[in-house]
Amino acid sequence: VAVYTDVSAEELADFIAGYDIGALRSVKGIAEGVENSNYLIQTEAGNYILTLYERRVAEADLPFFLGLMDHLAARGIPCPVPVRDRRGEALGRLCGRPAAIITFLDGVIAREPGPQHCAALGRAMARLHEAGADFTLTRANALSIDGWQTLAATCAPKADQVQAGLAEIITEELADLKSLWPEGLPAGIIHADLFPDNVFFLGDALTGLIDFYFSCNDYLAYDLAVCLNAWCFDGRHRFSPAHARALIAGYQEVRALTAGERAALPVLARGAALRFLLTRLYDKLHHVDGALVRPKDPLEYLARLTFHRTVEDAGVYGLEDGGNG
Amino acid sequence: VAVYTDVSAEELADFIAGYDIGALRSVKGIAEGVENSNYLIQTEAGNYILTLYERRVAEADLPFFLGLMDHLAARGIPCPVPVRDRRGEALGRLCGRPAAIITFLDGVIAREPGPQHCAALGRAMARLHEAGADFTLTRANALSIDGWQTLAATCAPKADQVQAGLAEIITEELADLKSLWPEGLPAGIIHADLFPDNVFFLGDALTGLIDFYFSCNDYLAYDLAVCLNAWCFDGRHRFSPAHARALIAGYQEVRALTAGERAALPVLARGAALRFLLTRLYDKLHHVDGALVRPKDPLEYLARLTFHRTVEDAGVYGLEDGGNG
Repeated sequence: VAVYTDVSAEELADFIAGYDIGALRSVKGIAEGVENSNYLIQTEAGNYILTLYERRVAEADLPFFLGLMDHLAARGIPCPVPVRDRRGEALGRLCGRPAAIITFLDGVIAREPGPQHCAALGRAMARLHEAGADFTLTRANALSIDGWQTLAATCAPKADQVQAGLAEIITEELADLKSLWPEGLPAGIIHADLFPDNVFFLGDALTGLIDFYFSCNDYLAYDLAVCLNAWCFDGRHRFSPAHARALIAGYQEVRALTAGERAALPVLARGAALRFLLTRLYDKLHHVDGALVRPKDPLEYLARLTFHRTVEDAGVYGLEDGGNG
Repeated sequence: VAVYTDVSAEELADFIAGYDIGALRSVKGIAEGVENSNYLIQTEAGNYILTLYERRVAEADLPFFLGLMDHLAARGIPCPVPVRDRRGEALGRLCGRPAAIITFLDGVIAREPGPQHCAALGRAMARLHEAGADFTLTRANALSIDGWQTLAATCAPKADQVQAGLAEIITEELADLKSLWPEGLPAGIIHADLFPDNVFFLGDALTGLIDFYFSCNDYLAYDLAVCLNAWCFDGRHRFSPAHARALIAGYQEVRALTAGERAALPVLARGAALRFLLTRLYDKLHHVDGALVRPKDPLEYLARLTFHRTVEDAGVYGLEDGGNG
């Protein structure tokens, strides 16, 4: 839940007048996305999402994010499209903040996703990877292994407040990952945050991928590793082989994993678990009392990390031996 | 900002299947109303608000609130209408809570209302009072003078933490109000919480009155006194005669105040100021760190109370002498 900036109807009406989307009929602050202020606006032309970018999103990255949504939507990926104002600009300013209006996507999130949701997600993610291949802007993944090291250094002194021994686990894992991290895997545009909150369905059909504000260039299989963590554990943090098998099979219907990617998957999954462990730990340790965001539990990702450390080969995730890598 | 209960798409789809409003297309938790969880849901039939009633609303009062909305809407008041399920019930259960689906109203709140908004509000409020005359259910105002005494007793020991001397001011004001409170004024259904957050406009036209969860039977002029507090002070808590004059003139276009109501207005305005001072004080003193609701400042209503104590007759609010009471 996060709505940070209060926009008055008067300011909003002025802002919207710069677009060719008719007059404002309604605006509701919505609990979607934790980094920005989001409003569902209804105008004479239909439904839109208005996003005000708050301090955690670097303004210099916005042309990448908005350009990427444009690029992917034009290639059939079901993602929001930035609406251009009368001057042709996708990025405006409102209440002193960078702001954009994007199209509204139907669909609801799957709070308890089944294998059929994972299969649809895998297919959509692989299509996203293929559609991103000719996108010309690039953005480094600020939350890859170097970024984890910075986060770990910031959090380590207080990590044991959350769980005794956590600082040592993080330090060891980071050292392991530095030596094990793969090189030369297929890379390109990834979403990097395809959690269930960011994927819409109507029934079993995937209708939307949203929240591209962590998207970047990195190993394609790292996106899959994020989803193994985010979609393939149950409410008690137990790994679900059926979910993982469906996710990977869906992905490979569109794009076959290489042998290198298959071999690297357990290490990539450990890295992704550590990434969310660290960012959640950071948010918990730096949580301001009374802030509107309730911090998520970092230990959910310690449980996942612990599991991935036991995985000796990607067969555990439902990958068959052999293949076409 | 308040969304307390997380409803899964699956639970929601099951719930909606009990209504004749088509399949779910989208659901967004919205930041509207502080007492309940509210969702904007879009179905094949249109837009609706789903409300889950949290602990601050007494379940026994829900038939009154929902019945009142039905009654008022049938008489042309622009308020939400509870949607009945296939069994004819307006009140259901979802996630273990009482829940209702109500119609969606277009419009936006006026964050900086002008006199024209106040005039429209006055007219709508008077129409609401007239339309409520033949509503057969009744509900006592739990937040009238007896309720204030209970709140004051709870808050007094800690009130000086918020401002030195506040406990004494509250005690004195309560004693004054008990001796000054009018008797025998015209009474009936009032909204009791017609703050700008609860009134929608498109341009200067009033399109909606929402959030009837404090509505009750009380002096009609007390509703006007609440609005004098909520709409007729600027951002620096200075009284605006132009706003008050427009509010009362708008009201009297529909329903003329009696002589007794006119004479009582300054005392009713003090009472309304004390009511919001006390409830905000209670919320601030009982605020749970990390809760999703940011407490409002009680001292904004101390400033209003201090102003109303200087008012010797209702002429200050823009009421002309004489009239038809």
